[in-house]
Amino acid sequence: MLAVGVPSGHEGMKQLTGKALSDFLERDEHPPRDVVFVLQDVEDPVNVGAAFRIADACGAREIVLSGTSPCPPHPTIAGIGRGTHRRVAWHYTRTAGEGIQSYRDRGFRAYALEVTAESLPYPSITYPAKLCLVVGSEYHGVTKRTLAACDAALYIPMYGKIGSLNVHVALAVVAFHILHTQAPA
Amino acid sequence: MLAVGVPSGHEGMKQLTGKALSDFLERDEHPPRDVVFVLQDVEDPVNVGAAFRIADACGAREIVLSGTSPCPPHPTIAGIGRGTHRRVAWHYTRTAGEGIQSYRDRGFRAYALEVTAESLPYPSITYPAKLCLVVGSEYHGVTKRTLAACDAALYIPMYGKIGSLNVHVALAVVAFHILHTQAPA
Repeated sequence: MLAVGVPSGHEGMKQLTGKALSDFLERDEHPPRDVVFVLQDVEDPVNVGAAFRIADACGAREIVLSGTSPCPPHPTIAGIGRGTHRRVAWHYTRTAGEGIQSYRDRGFRAYALEVTAESLPYPSITYPAKLCLVVGSEYHGVTKRTLAACDAALYIPMYGKIGSLNVHVALAVVAFHILHTQAPA
Repeated sequence: MLAVGVPSGHEGMKQLTGKALSDFLERDEHPPRDVVFVLQDVEDPVNVGAAFRIADACGAREIVLSGTSPCPPHPTIAGIGRGTHRRVAWHYTRTAGEGIQSYRDRGFRAYALEVTAESLPYPSITYPAKLCLVVGSEYHGVTKRTLAACDAALYIPMYGKIGSLNVHVALAVVAFHILHTQAPA
């Protein structure tokens, strides 16, 4: 940890772009986490495209699209996702539960991002190395059926009046927390 | 910390809505952090609206809009932000540096979210209780002039090909990390 107040020598700072940017980012090794995103009835292609871009940034293993979620090829998914649907693996299952179960059979744990009476604050958990993060519809959230296929539900403590975040924002907050805040259990 | 593998008793889980949702979320006290968002030339009203919704969820003190950033009232800011521009304090400054300096004069530290050769990974820092998070234009990032007004620059380690996140996603990842991962220095 760096102490607060380290002189930053910031006078000459400037944004890196192009090869300097990619060289800089390549210095960080991917954390030992195998993360899968499961989208249950995420209907807005903006959210699906954003999930692809976040999955690319996280080095996620795969996106499982399910139910009424739109799939590539789709112009909005391609645009918002900056073409990452061509790089990030994905497949479609009719129900989210099918996709979750196939990963649980391979040793993954599944965590739904949903506020239920039993949901745990996402920073309170020690996450395993292999996990699915499950998000639900913009309109009705993660269904009871999908929740029943998961190991646990998580929530993001919030302090405002709206009581929710956009689905891709919630996914990014929890995914980067898991990648960057602790070693796997 | 909860151990992995705690029985979840998840069979009956279901999404909370309405008053049950707000009662549930109100149990969490706001962490002892005073956070301000500074938007330098964030031109897409979708990103500005998203920043308002994230600021509401974070219990942020204020949003400083600057340069070419659109301000409320704006239909897209209202829609994407779910009306949070009416709840979250904001003001406009011509340059981001002015807004940053006024907070630094009041004891806040300012962190730019930008990849520069001197940027520090955001999880490596012990953050103070009072801080500004500064994000830049979708097109040219945080300018040298704005960077020079900040105490340090942060970056989010990423493992894909795109090398950036949408500006409001980056803001949410770092803001929630600061709220939820450590006590203030």
